[in-house]
Amino acid sequence: MIRLAIWGYGNLGRGVELAIRQNPDMELTGIYTRRDPKSVVSPYGTPSYAASDIYAHADEIDAVIICGGSATDLMPNTPLLAKAFNVIDSFDTHAFVEQHYANVDAAAKEGGKVGVISCGWDPGLFSLARVYALAALPEGSTYTFWGRGVSQGHSDAIRRIPGVVDARQYTVPVPAAVESVHTGESPVFVTRDMHTRECFVVAEEGADKAAIENAIKTMPNYFADYDTTVTFVTEEELLRDHAELPHGGHVIRSGFTGADNRHHETIDFALKLDSNPEFTAGVLVACARAAVRMNARGESGARTILDIAPRDLVMPEGAELRKMI
Amino acid sequence: MIRLAIWGYGNLGRGVELAIRQNPDMELTGIYTRRDPKSVVSPYGTPSYAASDIYAHADEIDAVIICGGSATDLMPNTPLLAKAFNVIDSFDTHAFVEQHYANVDAAAKEGGKVGVISCGWDPGLFSLARVYALAALPEGSTYTFWGRGVSQGHSDAIRRIPGVVDARQYTVPVPAAVESVHTGESPVFVTRDMHTRECFVVAEEGADKAAIENAIKTMPNYFADYDTTVTFVTEEELLRDHAELPHGGHVIRSGFTGADNRHHETIDFALKLDSNPEFTAGVLVACARAAVRMNARGESGARTILDIAPRDLVMPEGAELRKMI
Repeated sequence: MIRLAIWGYGNLGRGVELAIRQNPDMELTGIYTRRDPKSVVSPYGTPSYAASDIYAHADEIDAVIICGGSATDLMPNTPLLAKAFNVIDSFDTHAFVEQHYANVDAAAKEGGKVGVISCGWDPGLFSLARVYALAALPEGSTYTFWGRGVSQGHSDAIRRIPGVVDARQYTVPVPAAVESVHTGESPVFVTRDMHTRECFVVAEEGADKAAIENAIKTMPNYFADYDTTVTFVTEEELLRDHAELPHGGHVIRSGFTGADNRHHETIDFALKLDSNPEFTAGVLVACARAAVRMNARGESGARTILDIAPRDLVMPEGAELRKMI
Repeated sequence: MIRLAIWGYGNLGRGVELAIRQNPDMELTGIYTRRDPKSVVSPYGTPSYAASDIYAHADEIDAVIICGGSATDLMPNTPLLAKAFNVIDSFDTHAFVEQHYANVDAAAKEGGKVGVISCGWDPGLFSLARVYALAALPEGSTYTFWGRGVSQGHSDAIRRIPGVVDARQYTVPVPAAVESVHTGESPVFVTRDMHTRECFVVAEEGADKAAIENAIKTMPNYFADYDTTVTFVTEEELLRDHAELPHGGHVIRSGFTGADNRHHETIDFALKLDSNPEFTAGVLVACARAAVRMNARGESGARTILDIAPRDLVMPEGAELRKMI
């Protein structure tokens, strides 16, 4: 049995607990939290401990799945924990991946452990789709479309506008853009061409809705470069119609082969997810299996999913796995 | 530079020559053929040699891409060549994969070489899709749909019927079946539900077309279990409308996550290929890169694409590759 610990128990941590229960070669030995452990109650009876107590439980942990936010949690904590444990995180701030990788690599090598960073679906399965597509089709263009799905970052940005009580933002691919990639036109897009943004906003009573809508639509980086729609809803409607966290998207490679590149070849890797955090958790858990196996073979240091042989992610091995060939 | 040789120069061999030209870290040093080498002329001036002369050229070959048919060519020849060279093949007879793997493993270990078998898109990229999907979503069902595309085996089967001059057979997924998988119904299919077969047949003058159509539709294994349509065309129409070798398909995982499996998650890996052999060649060439790298690190024995870390398939390395994360 692979004995796992969860560090951080929000949406993602709860998803990891559920995902571990789907893998019969794994067990969850503890949840580690910076909140009062008494306030963190697992529906499945997993014991909760203070985060700082994790070192005292080292002999019951083969790997720690770190379930925190990229900016504040993962950059300091993944390297710290990698000195003592095999670790897995879902670090997704692309601009800092290289720095985070270097930090985790140094720490994990010091501790003789494996640290797998940036697991999930993007980065993660979408990274794999981009790399395999480049391998098979060196000539061509790769397009990533996200959605339809809830962006937590954009939802948070709306909530910071004065007069807003709550909000949910959906990122939506432009169907005509997806279609033009499929037909092999190798289009060059500007930001506005690929995605639209749909905002569902609960305003305070008496708030200036026109001002809120304008503040959203003109917000630099988040909304100004997109065609954005704003719909005001009641708190009840938001809870009723927008409580879930769906997501998904496509990685599409539009490539060319043959003499004079006469043949068009399309690879389309698509996800349609009812639950972004639960699906992300499934990938993290598979990467934990790989981390434990790699470390058992004597490997140490930082890894991404691009460094992991696919066979290390799944339960079946050897001839049993080759039946899936 | 990775120096490659092609063994066998049919549709797939010609595709490999074209694919190598798309990879600036590779060069093709020779084509090895069992035909008269003088009759094998590369449009790009690659020298042709007799197959038996390959050992004399060992010092200009880092890996041999074996481009033959599974049944007769690959089972004997991949192990033979693996004793002296890193080799890559596209062995696709699922029932014999394990035996072929064992033969190549023994030979490659004896020679201190790496032999990658069963590369292409199925087996190959579709195998990867099945394994990654299982890793991320342990609970669910995986469906593989092929087409719309030309099946060489089924086209050959029709050509063997008396009175048939030539034929082309397309395998076509049933749209309603693909749709029902996407909607999460986890359907259980019989063969007929998933694919139809479209046959375009050139008959001899005066042949009994009704008898030919009946012979096709009732042929066991190939057609009897499918809804099959037969269209008689002229030789000119076949050449004009059916000269290409398109193919493709989907690997779809319909999985479930969360408490009581309440959330449905779909992974859909889809290919739409204008040229089956040219695309297959692209995957073989990427696997050749990996074979050479793995062997340079001291590895030997048989491998499948499930054993290859994705980073070994592509040119960019280290920090440059992690930009694609």
